[in-house]
Amino acid sequence: MSSSRLSMEGPASPARAPGALPYYVAFSQLLGLIVVAMTGAWLGMYRGGIAWESALQFNVHPLCMIIGLVFLQGDALLVYRVFRNEAKRTTKVLHGLLHVFAFVIALVGLVAVFEHHRKKGYADLYSLHSWCGILVFALFFAQWLVGFSFFLFPGASFSLRSRYRPQHVFFGAAIFLLSVATALLGLKEALLFELGTKYSMFEPEGVLANVLGLLLATFATVILYILTRADWKRPLQAEEQALSMDFKTLTEGDSPSSQ
Amino acid sequence: MSSSRLSMEGPASPARAPGALPYYVAFSQLLGLIVVAMTGAWLGMYRGGIAWESALQFNVHPLCMIIGLVFLQGDALLVYRVFRNEAKRTTKVLHGLLHVFAFVIALVGLVAVFEHHRKKGYADLYSLHSWCGILVFALFFAQWLVGFSFFLFPGASFSLRSRYRPQHVFFGAAIFLLSVATALLGLKEALLFELGTKYSMFEPEGVLANVLGLLLATFATVILYILTRADWKRPLQAEEQALSMDFKTLTEGDSPSSQ
Repeated sequence: MSSSRLSMEGPASPARAPGALPYYVAFSQLLGLIVVAMTGAWLGMYRGGIAWESALQFNVHPLCMIIGLVFLQGDALLVYRVFRNEAKRTTKVLHGLLHVFAFVIALVGLVAVFEHHRKKGYADLYSLHSWCGILVFALFFAQWLVGFSFFLFPGASFSLRSRYRPQHVFFGAAIFLLSVATALLGLKEALLFELGTKYSMFEPEGVLANVLGLLLATFATVILYILTRADWKRPLQAEEQALSMDFKTLTEGDSPSSQ
Repeated sequence: MSSSRLSMEGPASPARAPGALPYYVAFSQLLGLIVVAMTGAWLGMYRGGIAWESALQFNVHPLCMIIGLVFLQGDALLVYRVFRNEAKRTTKVLHGLLHVFAFVIALVGLVAVFEHHRKKGYADLYSLHSWCGILVFALFFAQWLVGFSFFLFPGASFSLRSRYRPQHVFFGAAIFLLSVATALLGLKEALLFELGTKYSMFEPEGVLANVLGLLLATFATVILYILTRADWKRPLQAEEQALSMDFKTLTEGDSPSSQ
């Protein structure tokens, strides 16, 4: 149903108004919640559950990362589509806050895995999963800082903001996708470490985790679809339009400040 | 250098003409070639090289997949940006042909791994990597068939084409990204199977493969950046513009065929 536009053949009128947007958003939220619930079910059923002060501390890591860097980060990207007609400032603050929540939860997940490694005497940061994870963390933090100082801090000029905006959007999507890819690598690692050759015998845990992996990829695809669909982009509000026109007149004329 | 736009702060004029496009394309090609060469180096230095009629047949799999589903598929997506001013028909044919090459090479890689499994008596299709891989193959093939029948086969109407186009572009990018994610999963699998606990001792093979993984992710990011940058999109040629205007007039009027 969610991809029915792909095969539509009748002479239906081209949907300019975002009539289908709420359904896609609902589908993304359903997928996101299933992914979080399945991660919990996997850890509960096959890995003994979650606890901070025990060997189960490791299990905090995948759960926090899926909640923070997949579900919440994905939802933070949708803010401008879901609240299309709210004041821009409100959506900006919500977008920034969701990223803060995502970051804090992911930080707990990061501490969990480092503490687990320390207690067990395992080496840190040798795997592709860990390299990608650290890269995601650094990029996420940098993107948040730059985004905050350009869009929420009052200093940046209108012209600077509109030139940085497309870069911010692109790198936001790229960091989200790299987060999901890193989650897939981590899931694979956890399966191969624990299941070993039993993985090839279609053990229930392996099948569950594979389905979880496919759902993670589907969640990322749906978020990206909502984000990139041209007719679902946030329309300029009246006052923003006016500002934008002023800016255009200023920069396209021979203003002394443009070199 | 490639992300210098991110931090530009001076009042430089907004670059409407794709002045930087050739540099980004060159950088993507350099990255793509490095990724292919590194995959060859990894297989040659640590996996005994490549041969069809021996235990080395497995090694055909990663090399073919990287060449076909990563490098060639990525380049096929860039065709409309690189040949921005060629006739649309020519670029379409090139786009379709590059996908055919990619598919044939990937098919060889697929046969290699299935034959290797059969000879060794390994189970097929149990891992997340293999599930993602089969999904990529099915989606790639379906996308090619639908794309061919809409855009190259003369039957489809202009209105149908312009409604399907954004879907085709989105799913093309999504299939490419899933291909790269699947390659990362495969790389990780190959490392964990062979290196085992030595992976955590920063063995040269592990470090090489991690760097290869990061370069794969960077290649995908650069391709996606070139593809999504608004001012680098292919401009409508004069005759297409005329057709498009006709179409607009037809569909926006009270034509009897629109319901």
